This record gives sequence, structure tokens and C-alpha cells, in this order.
Amino acid sequence: MPPRNPDFAKAIRDSFQRQGAMAHLGTRLQRVEHGLCEVRQDFSPQVAQQQGLFHGGIVATVADVAGGYAALSMAAPGHEALTVEYKINLFAPALGDELIAIGHVIRSGRTLTVTEIAVSCRDGDVVTPCARALQTIMIVLPYAGRAL
Amino acid sequence: MPPRNPDFAKAIRDSFQRQGAMAHLGTRLQRVEHGLCEVRQDFSPQVAQQQGLFHGGIVATVADVAGGYAALSMAAPGHEALTVEYKINLFAPALGDELIAIGHVIRSGRTLTVTEIAVSCRDGDVVTPCARALQTIMIVLPYAGRAL
Amino acid sequence: MPPRNPDFAKAIRDSFQRQGAMAHLGTRLQRVEHGLCEVRQDFSPQVAQQQGLFHGGIVATVADVAGGYAALSMAAPGHEALTVEYKINLFAPALGDELIAIGHVIRSGRTLTVTEIAVSCRDGDVVTPCARALQTIMIVLPYAGRAL
Amino acid sequence: MPPRNPDFAKAIRDSFQRQGAMAHLGTRLQRVEHGLCEVRQDFSPQVAQQQGLFHGGIVATVADVAGGYAALSMAAPGHEALTVEYKINLFAPALGDELIAIGHVIRSGRTLTVTEIAVSCRDGDVVTPCARALQTIMIVLPYAGRAL
Repeated sequence: MPPRNPDFAKAIRDSFQRQGAMAHLGTRLQRVEHGLCEVRQDFSPQVAQQQGLFHGGIVATVADVAGGYAALSMAAPGHEALTVEYKINLFAPALGDELIAIGHVIRSGRTLTVTEIAVSCRDGDVVTPCARALQTIMIVLPYAGRAL
Repeated sequence: MPPRNPDFAKAIRDSFQRQGAMAHLGTRLQRVEHGLCEVRQDFSPQVAQQQGLFHGGIVATVADVAGGYAALSMAAPGHEALTVEYKINLFAPALGDELIAIGHVIRSGRTLTVTEIAVSCRDGDVVTPCARALQTIMIVLPYAGRAL
Repeated sequence: MPPRNPDFAKAIRDSFQRQGAMAHLGTRLQRVEHGLCEVRQDFSPQVAQQQGLFHGGIVATVADVAGGYAALSMAAPGHEALTVEYKINLFAPALGDELIAIGHVIRSGRTLTVTEIAVSCRDGDVVTPCARALQTIMIVLPYAGRAL
Repeated sequence: MPPRNPDFAKAIRDSFQRQGAMAHLGTRLQRVEHGLCEVRQDFSPQVAQQQGLFHGGIVATVADVAGGYAALSMAAPGHEALTVEYKINLFAPALGDELIAIGHVIRSGRTLTVTEIAVSCRDGDVVTPCARALQTIMIVLPYAGRAL
């Protein structure tokens, strides 16, 4: 199945650029493919919890973004990805230099898209899985409520 | 049942202060009671997504923190709250001046604590529920892996 | 807000009657109100796991049904409740004479409904909470794929 | 890493045999490997919902069992798998002759095991994915509360 939006990668990069939170956290959009998105986050005290690990909220944020844009890569032009819900298991200490979240689409339906996201921690050359998420995305027209 | 740690509120405030991510995002610890914690977050472009709403990752972060500290309020002294997993439903646009996350303990077990978190958006004087989370917390001794 | 279907209780009872699995398990539809549904299940070895507790799958089944019909009680006539997803925490041994699942609607949206379900175990006169679920329901027209 | 219980397959088959609900529903334990378990369920009106699909509670039940025994296959002898929680997405109509649930371990920790379960529907020769679950299991000593 070819992409419904041939320019999905550009659309996603543009959308990512407009997310103030991503700039503030220093999150990077690493890779966009049809049905897949990879997001990365360097460690700094600004994204840490009280023990020097990546904050769980940051782990969830990169997972959420990677899954949402994986879903959006399969949508028609002019849409946005809205997170309906997700569940995340944090199963190893998120310790290291960089978080790597890779989201991919499990099922792209008419109304809802289901994605799965694998999050790993890179510490030097060692990459260790640390979290897994299962997410429901709704593809919608842009919300007109607040102009930035 | 009285608190196992009579100084739980101070312990939680100290722990919150050591979270670099909370300082960077400007998240506030509003209220700590036995089995309950309230966390707030002002809106700014730095916590927004591409449409000017609160970023879903930020909504999840305040929910995660509120639930984790609600669980920690019932723990013995010297412990930390580790998020095992959670699931969050984002069911209304997170639009407004302030996010308000209130976590409370549903079940405090020997090993695991289950919490529920209600997140609302305050826009002027109007407070609207926007998300609900269900979370599993493990109470553990501090992780010694990385000193900040 | 009045019910969109004034005969929602009858519609739900009719739908429940047509569920072969409910008859096979002996599950009972105890109570239907606007935005709420209560489902009960007697204990027997036929709904037990290997240790004599209610089987976790049965706990999830009654939770799923209670949440789905709570959502359907707020829908327009002629629709069905489709479970998009749910998450359930099983936090106490499901031991006793009867399972009691009470689902209620947290948010009834245009496309999706979010429900929460509390499950308890009644052992003689003692009722103990044993599980909590958070569920996403889609209200749809009937699926025409297979006639019973 | 070799299995901690060399007889894990026999232990799991014995445990499955003692589940009254599995006998009542006609669920079959198809395959047990180290870190993996496959469970199958034939269609009949006794496991159907009101539209002639597999009941969502049955889909969840086979997923829960497949994940739990996948976790147990990596445990030391004499333990049981207790489901802490799971989340399941039902993303396609569960229509067909047979449900196939394959659970595998993502992370086997000291206290908790995280599993993922893929559920498909076989209709004649066509196998279609219909659900995905993410589950947290605790490996525990047997519960002594009720003798069967």
C-alpha cells in the first residue's frame, strides 16, 4: 500500500518543528518512514528524575511522539495525529546518554490506528531496552481552538 | 491506618525538588496528603504541541508524578516510588491556563500500589476533565546507579 | 442530558441476552442506568483458575461487559458498543461467592466513550475491591459480518 | 540463559489442566517454549458476543493465559504466574473458526515479567491479526486461600 500522503515525511517534520515542548526538551525527530518513526532524546539534568535517570514522563513523551508520527505517516494529507490513549511499561532503569523510541504501526484502521513503541537507552555503545508502549491514535483534522 | 512515614509530605517535597525535569518544565507540587497528591503545570509554548494545546507527554508527566507521589505518601521512610506502568486516556483537548493532576491510591499492597489519576484543564475559571490514568507503582529502595 | 435512547435499558438487556458467552458463563446483567451498568458472576469451578480463585479472564470479561453497556446506555438507538481497548489491574485475590463489576461513563464523546470499571468480590457479607479497569468504547452500527 | 525450571513445559501443562475455566470454555494449550506460549480457542456460540464474533472477554482471556504462561516458563520451579495487569487493543473483528494467542516475554525481571501477546483469528486458511496486549506478571508462590 503506497502512502496516502507522498510528502508524509515533510509533513511530520513540519509538525514536529511546531511543537514547543520538543524544542524545550531538546527532543529530536531522527527518522520517518511509512509506518515508522524514531525519536531521540539526549540525557541532561533537565530531563532527569530525582535519581539521575531519565524522567518517566520524558520516556513516555518520546514514546507518545514516536507512535503518533508513525500513525500520521500513513494518513492522508492535512491531518493531525491525536493520542486517544496509551499504556507504557517501564521495565528497566532509563539510564544512559540517549533515549531511543521507535514507533511502528500495528494496524491502520479507518478511524483508529494502533501503534507499538519500543524505547531503549543508549549508554556509550550499549543499547538496552527500557520501555514498551501500546497506543491508540485517531487521525483528525486540525483543532482550531487556539492559535499559537 | 496512620502513615508509615510521619514525615511523608516533607520527603515528597524533597524528592520533587531533586527532579531536574520538574524544574525545567515549571511543574509544581501543589498538595500532598496521605494517599493523595496534586501536581499543577502552567501553560506556556514550552509545554505545547503543534496546535497550542498542552503536549500529551506533559499531560502524562504530571499524571505520572501525581500518582507516584500519592503512592509514596503511604510508604515507609527512605523509599522511592518507581513507575512500573500506566495507561492514560486523553479524552478532551488539553487547552487552558493550567493542568491539574490529582492522584490517589486505590490499593496499597505489600509490593505494588495501584493509583488512579484525574487530570483537568483550568481555563480562566472553568475546570474541565481532560485525562484519566491508571498506574502501577513499586515502592523500592533508592537506585544507586548514577549520582547527579 | 437525557438519554438519547429512552429505551436504553431494554436495548441493553436484549443485547446481553444474545451473548452466547454470557449464558455459557452464567453472567448476570444486574443493573442498567443512564451511564452505568452492573454485571455479576457467581463462583463455580467453571470460572476458576488453577488455585480456586475467579479466573482473571472472567474478571476481565465482566469488567469489559459492564463498561461496554455503560457506554451503550448513552448512545442513540440501534447502535452497538465495540471495545476499542481496555486496561485492567487485578490487585487482590478474586476470591469469593460472587464478582460484582460496576462500569460508569467518564466521558461520552462524539466517536469514543471512556469508561471506568470497579470490580469487587463478595465473600458472604464481605465485599472487597479486587480490580479496576479503564476502557475505550466506540459506538458503532451493527457489524453485518456473521449472522448467528 | 537456560530455563530455571527444566520441567517448565510439564509444570505449565499441569497448571493449565487445573483451570476449570479453560475446560469450560474449551481453550487449548497449543505450544509451550522457553519464554513463549500459544493458546487456541475454537469458535462456538458459547464464546460469542451478540453479533456472532468471538466475545471480547474470551479474546482477553486467551491473551491473558498465553502471556501468563510465557512468563511462567522462565520461572523457578514451584511458582505461579499472577496477572498484575494488562492492556489489550481489539483492532479487528474477531471473526473466524479459531482464536490464536501467542505470548512472549519482553523482560523477565526479579519481581515482575513483562509480556506481549499477539492474537489472531483463523477463518479457514486465512489468519488475521485481531488484538494485541501488553501485560505485567508477578511470579509468586502458590496462593493458599482456597482449596479446590
